[in-house]
Amino acid sequence: MTAIDLNCDMGESFGNYRMGDDEAVMPYITSANVAGGFHAGDPHVLFETIELAAEHDVGIGVHPGLPDKIGFGRRTMDATPAEVRDYVIYQLGAVLGVAKHHGVEVQHVKPHGAMYSMLSESEEHTRAVIEAILEVDPSLIYLATDRNILAVAREYDALDTVFEGYVDLDYAADGTIIVEQRKKRRDPELVADRVVSIAEHGTVEAADGTTIDLPADSICIHGDGPNAVELLRTIHDRLDAEGIDRRQLSELV
Amino acid sequence: MTAIDLNCDMGESFGNYRMGDDEAVMPYITSANVAGGFHAGDPHVLFETIELAAEHDVGIGVHPGLPDKIGFGRRTMDATPAEVRDYVIYQLGAVLGVAKHHGVEVQHVKPHGAMYSMLSESEEHTRAVIEAILEVDPSLIYLATDRNILAVAREYDALDTVFEGYVDLDYAADGTIIVEQRKKRRDPELVADRVVSIAEHGTVEAADGTTIDLPADSICIHGDGPNAVELLRTIHDRLDAEGIDRRQLSELV
Amino acid sequence: MTAIDLNCDMGESFGNYRMGDDEAVMPYITSANVAGGFHAGDPHVLFETIELAAEHDVGIGVHPGLPDKIGFGRRTMDATPAEVRDYVIYQLGAVLGVAKHHGVEVQHVKPHGAMYSMLSESEEHTRAVIEAILEVDPSLIYLATDRNILAVAREYDALDTVFEGYVDLDYAADGTIIVEQRKKRRDPELVADRVVSIAEHGTVEAADGTTIDLPADSICIHGDGPNAVELLRTIHDRLDAEGIDRRQLSELV
Amino acid sequence: MTAIDLNCDMGESFGNYRMGDDEAVMPYITSANVAGGFHAGDPHVLFETIELAAEHDVGIGVHPGLPDKIGFGRRTMDATPAEVRDYVIYQLGAVLGVAKHHGVEVQHVKPHGAMYSMLSESEEHTRAVIEAILEVDPSLIYLATDRNILAVAREYDALDTVFEGYVDLDYAADGTIIVEQRKKRRDPELVADRVVSIAEHGTVEAADGTTIDLPADSICIHGDGPNAVELLRTIHDRLDAEGIDRRQLSELV
Repeated sequence: MTAIDLNCDMGESFGNYRMGDDEAVMPYITSANVAGGFHAGDPHVLFETIELAAEHDVGIGVHPGLPDKIGFGRRTMDATPAEVRDYVIYQLGAVLGVAKHHGVEVQHVKPHGAMYSMLSESEEHTRAVIEAILEVDPSLIYLATDRNILAVAREYDALDTVFEGYVDLDYAADGTIIVEQRKKRRDPELVADRVVSIAEHGTVEAADGTTIDLPADSICIHGDGPNAVELLRTIHDRLDAEGIDRRQLSELV
Repeated sequence: MTAIDLNCDMGESFGNYRMGDDEAVMPYITSANVAGGFHAGDPHVLFETIELAAEHDVGIGVHPGLPDKIGFGRRTMDATPAEVRDYVIYQLGAVLGVAKHHGVEVQHVKPHGAMYSMLSESEEHTRAVIEAILEVDPSLIYLATDRNILAVAREYDALDTVFEGYVDLDYAADGTIIVEQRKKRRDPELVADRVVSIAEHGTVEAADGTTIDLPADSICIHGDGPNAVELLRTIHDRLDAEGIDRRQLSELV
Repeated sequence: MTAIDLNCDMGESFGNYRMGDDEAVMPYITSANVAGGFHAGDPHVLFETIELAAEHDVGIGVHPGLPDKIGFGRRTMDATPAEVRDYVIYQLGAVLGVAKHHGVEVQHVKPHGAMYSMLSESEEHTRAVIEAILEVDPSLIYLATDRNILAVAREYDALDTVFEGYVDLDYAADGTIIVEQRKKRRDPELVADRVVSIAEHGTVEAADGTTIDLPADSICIHGDGPNAVELLRTIHDRLDAEGIDRRQLSELV
Repeated sequence: MTAIDLNCDMGESFGNYRMGDDEAVMPYITSANVAGGFHAGDPHVLFETIELAAEHDVGIGVHPGLPDKIGFGRRTMDATPAEVRDYVIYQLGAVLGVAKHHGVEVQHVKPHGAMYSMLSESEEHTRAVIEAILEVDPSLIYLATDRNILAVAREYDALDTVFEGYVDLDYAADGTIIVEQRKKRRDPELVADRVVSIAEHGTVEAADGTTIDLPADSICIHGDGPNAVELLRTIHDRLDAEGIDRRQLSELV
């Protein structure tokens, strides 16, 4: 049976500041990328987010970011491979601790924002992070958006790597994502078409109408998009209609 | 055979700022309280500190603090039991992650500064922290300085608790520690006398000459004292002469 | 002519996190308490907030908080008078710098949250802050909610002090404010009645129906209340109908 | 009469962490670059540093850095011109506030570490910062190490710009500084020779023995070098012997 994972960034609120609507989104996803507290999140938000994920039997991943809350971890910085490695391990550990408290496992790692851009542009940084993940827990899955990182990750036999695709953003013909300044409402049917196309054929239609290869086993949904829950509901209906199963990452590797 | 643990706060450097001389002190202690990154420390310092502790086969504990680096975690704040619990779990997790990376276990938890004062004054806070520790890993040892906390901790059968004593500070006759504004040089022989007295008799001489009960299995040495390494060397010599063994916490419970 | 100031906390967004709707509220107020960057705000938010206030000719004040963004400055902490003084001067200076950039003056100081609670409970802290304000710029106005602080402030002849009242919260018969966990929608007509009563008679009806003294020259509106703009519009209409002028603090002292 | 300014980075301690020995260095310098609290320093350190500078009649400048205390502001980050501008204004303002408290003026601005590297590589960033400084206070002097920044700054007629030279680091023949990983002890006589050469001839000998142009009116001394005070004493003696005056920046423009 064909199956796909639906992942979403979660736990990005901070102190009195709310971001996203985790309670509304969590029931519709299979894997949650939980902010590690550097670019977003805090210890209390982390505690509650993992509790919520556990209630919904959602696979838990750490979403580690750069120590730049003012920039939401979206500004690359001249940090060494060892520094980035240490940011990942620290945040991964924090998530491990909270997950142990709630009696659940940590499933995956997905670097956030500028951290993932830095890995994409530096094989040395990518290797530092991957080798650290393997030291901490070789059962962790690396969830990769980026083809550069994916290529390096696949060199590590001990590491399970899953490629993810986007459906609420558009792809250019060269396979890169077209980032938008402000998230806009997306057509649920178009988005659901893309999910099915990725799940069944490993392809998606680019902005210029060409069909591009997208061998993804996971779909990333932006929880802070203006109609994220609507998109997720439509995706669920379509997956059910097509007989495609929703499975968290750990069941797909 | 009589045995005692020697513990010290470690990993309190931060970025370019140095504090203490961990490389000089680590060879002389049996347990290290490693700053969790909130009141002191950072991910890179944490990585290196646990690596150093592992090299010297020193038992590793988390030294969680309040999120107040500017105040070095020494200012009590009006945080709820759940908030303090979450600060402990987050930092404990971070230490767990780094320890897993280095292939070593985490042995104990010892709250820092104002956090421990807050626990001492609030049974509700103490219970929140202890119950969280037990959820994360019931094999963790609670290292307690404070008699109030000790009394609450001892109610939990599942929790191993060790009481610690100070020898480079003076006790008042009522068993409280006389805190000094600026750490001063201490007489190594007097300090070693105290260690032996605690290890062999569970007592120590207070500032006014009276003998007080101090049923401690661990001795805390302040690594940032002006002659910490000299004190530790003298303690080692005296323990050897008296036939008292040095053992990390996990071997004493 | 009777006149009153309408003040509101502004500039509490932080990085990617939004709080309040400053653009909607600013046209309706006469004085803005701009977050100084410790409990809320950041340098970019501060820049934009003062620019917005200047466009609307709104009096600018600094709203300094404790260095506790995770707790939104609402947790008292054991900081010394000198520490609190330095937090105030630093944030006041930052606001002065941005105001000079925009070619406008800074009008007032209003400590936020737990900082004001700490001042209320400690005359020594209050004096440290007031004396520092006078050193930096004796033309600054102290905007006081609290009767304890007000009493101390009034001892300083060189300091202009204005007392503020709340109309979107209820007062107890003893003159203290009844704080609510979650801000709720307020009846605009009732709120406008209170403004008029304070402006014309210096009194307000407490929750138990008794009339209490409230000699306030400024009204604080909570910009993050669910119907803040509606309240402000109704207040404007009523003030116009009653022939009560809206004036910023600097025109009232 | 020939004259030169001696400047040094000051106020880089943070909370309980000490850096440099400001009390020992301050008597020997004419201008202090005071950390603005982002890469180093804190409100209390800032207060004390400006108080100390005022006591010694040392010219006060702001040393603004990137918001990266863990990296000591030495890691470039992908911040926009407006973001860097706002970091400068905020920290400049804070220093202005503290200086007003102590009844002294702020004399100059000297960006720190990676911030100055970013300005050096981006004319757009440099212009954003310079134009903001002019808006805040056109009497402020820009203290420039870098020839790229200097060239842009000199285009602004309203801005006084002073170029600085290093004497406790070596220059390469192309005029760039040879940065060392760890500051080492420097020969006081060689360092004093360089100061005199810069003051009298506007030249210095590079590492390869060639003479390079260095039209500097200010000399930067690294206060955290292992023999900074010794260097400063020798420089003072030599300047006295040569009849070269020590003057703060404001007396040189």
